[in-house]
Amino acid sequence: MTLILSNDDVASVLTMSGCMDVLEDAYRDLHSGAAITRRRSDSLTPTTREDAIYGFKTMDGVIPSQGVAAVRLNSDIVTWPRVDGNLRRVKVPAAPNNRWVGLILLFSTENGEPLAIMPDGVVQRTRVGATNGLGVKYMARKDAKSIGILGSGWQAVTQLQAACEVRDIQNIKVFSPNEGHRVTFAQEMNDLLGCEVSPTNTVESCVADVDIVLCSSNSIEAIFFERWLRPGLHVSAIKMPEIEEAALRKADRVALHFGQRQPDTIRAKGVNPPDRRAGTGWAVHEEFDFDSCPKLPQFIAGEEIGRINDSETTCFINDMGLGLQFASAAGLAYRKAKEAGLGNELPTDWFTEDVHP
Amino acid sequence: MTLILSNDDVASVLTMSGCMDVLEDAYRDLHSGAAITRRRSDSLTPTTREDAIYGFKTMDGVIPSQGVAAVRLNSDIVTWPRVDGNLRRVKVPAAPNNRWVGLILLFSTENGEPLAIMPDGVVQRTRVGATNGLGVKYMARKDAKSIGILGSGWQAVTQLQAACEVRDIQNIKVFSPNEGHRVTFAQEMNDLLGCEVSPTNTVESCVADVDIVLCSSNSIEAIFFERWLRPGLHVSAIKMPEIEEAALRKADRVALHFGQRQPDTIRAKGVNPPDRRAGTGWAVHEEFDFDSCPKLPQFIAGEEIGRINDSETTCFINDMGLGLQFASAAGLAYRKAKEAGLGNELPTDWFTEDVHP
Repeated sequence: MTLILSNDDVASVLTMSGCMDVLEDAYRDLHSGAAITRRRSDSLTPTTREDAIYGFKTMDGVIPSQGVAAVRLNSDIVTWPRVDGNLRRVKVPAAPNNRWVGLILLFSTENGEPLAIMPDGVVQRTRVGATNGLGVKYMARKDAKSIGILGSGWQAVTQLQAACEVRDIQNIKVFSPNEGHRVTFAQEMNDLLGCEVSPTNTVESCVADVDIVLCSSNSIEAIFFERWLRPGLHVSAIKMPEIEEAALRKADRVALHFGQRQPDTIRAKGVNPPDRRAGTGWAVHEEFDFDSCPKLPQFIAGEEIGRINDSETTCFINDMGLGLQFASAAGLAYRKAKEAGLGNELPTDWFTEDVHP
Repeated sequence: MTLILSNDDVASVLTMSGCMDVLEDAYRDLHSGAAITRRRSDSLTPTTREDAIYGFKTMDGVIPSQGVAAVRLNSDIVTWPRVDGNLRRVKVPAAPNNRWVGLILLFSTENGEPLAIMPDGVVQRTRVGATNGLGVKYMARKDAKSIGILGSGWQAVTQLQAACEVRDIQNIKVFSPNEGHRVTFAQEMNDLLGCEVSPTNTVESCVADVDIVLCSSNSIEAIFFERWLRPGLHVSAIKMPEIEEAALRKADRVALHFGQRQPDTIRAKGVNPPDRRAGTGWAVHEEFDFDSCPKLPQFIAGEEIGRINDSETTCFINDMGLGLQFASAAGLAYRKAKEAGLGNELPTDWFTEDVHP
């Protein structure tokens, strides 16, 4: 049987610690060449809506030691409205019932069979959190006890969960421009994480006197600045532009997730302007030498060291996602969901064939 | 609802003439830049079987004018057994119930929604036939009346159907090394196509005195040779190596389907040897200047002419498939199947999500 899982199914079985474990194994295999991943491709075309483009994005990963291959795909209607004067990139939930379309298809490397189909949302935020959490594991001070997090959205939860997995965190401060959001989020995280979480009224007070700053925004501009760097601090970003370029230059050590900073983009005629808005949706730091930065798999393989003393300032940037991450995390979710009897089972014959393709 | 279609469903609605029509439109859009296609990628890893590798292959296409985007994927266990002394590339039907795994996922470019999931087999052979049929349309003599076909397998049926759509074919000769196969196939094609189809005992008699030769084999070596070329003949191949390189050099005009002759191949360590067997499975003519050949979309757009007089010899090679073809043909199959009430309907909510991915 092929398992159809929902985000709720995935959320109920995909633990942060489990996800971080399988991801570490997957990175080790990627580094040794035993596992592979295909860079994300974005195929962009016009739609009949003048203000929107259609984006079809796919990425693949194969991890033989975990027995899985996967494609993760997104079928997006993308617009760029102005919100409070700022240009934002917004994926419109245009599918029936106002929903988004992101899927992971999971296959067995042993016999090729389709194991599962699941939405990508929960896996996505879990793998983002796990990746930045591994950044904390290898780069933050071992005795780090406090976090300031910028952002209180969907991604912020897993950012905190992952950091708490790898450090003995006692205090968390949260800043969001929206007071209601930060107060509610702080209360929820208090309950979820069992440590003291408090909202702050200013971004400056959020980043002051903490060991770790986690950027977890949907901003397409910098939200963490050079002037806030101080000895011993670890700064973590979930997307390229969050940390100001001057801060990266001043930091003692900057590492990337994997170093694939841009997808392979294929644009139809009429996707105008053919600029940054049509790609990742944000400006990329042009002058910083990212190519020379160590990457997460090198830390895991023991080839690079994330921090050499307690006074270094370190930055970790979670650049573009990998098919490998989705294969690994979705593979774990599938195995756990199957054990737990979750999901809708469909005949595997529906997704296989008796003719040679 | 999202439609789950079987190969039988697809076969009952996907006509050759319909497929050729939508493909011509898709190629016109591809040529103008209105439609796009992502080159096939092959991710290859070892398996626990020493004699097999695992291959995860994906390709994407987006055609806004047809309202569709698609990914076609294959999850293959591949071996290279020796059959009658010759090395063959064999995809093992290793999935449950001895089945292969090839799928097309179809999406709407208007609202992103998942429209259908179907196996790729029938679409695959229909799009191969349609492509070579378009080669016949633009390159064979207008008064061509006879065909010699080399091969009697799964692909041969659609090769003949497509050629019969674009030329008034009266006589067909078929050769296959296996006498039983060629006799049975000739009888079946007689009934299907309503023209005279007869088996021949030798390959030489099959290619003699015909206007068109269709190569439709699973050979990884040449099966049509220079010595068989003569004025006015059109020779068609479903894969690169079928037409001897010397024949290509001697022909007056050689065209390719699209000119993407190799996939993007990503190999894990241990996929050994990293040679042609791990890629397309066949030797590629190294010396012929394929880059200068016209391509099918140029014929359709009226930028190139396939034949300038009745005495030219022409060759058409159907090089690597495109995601675009699968989007177009699967889109047609979906629309027809929906009209006909075919397939299994599943809630679209199973394949969409209420969280921003």
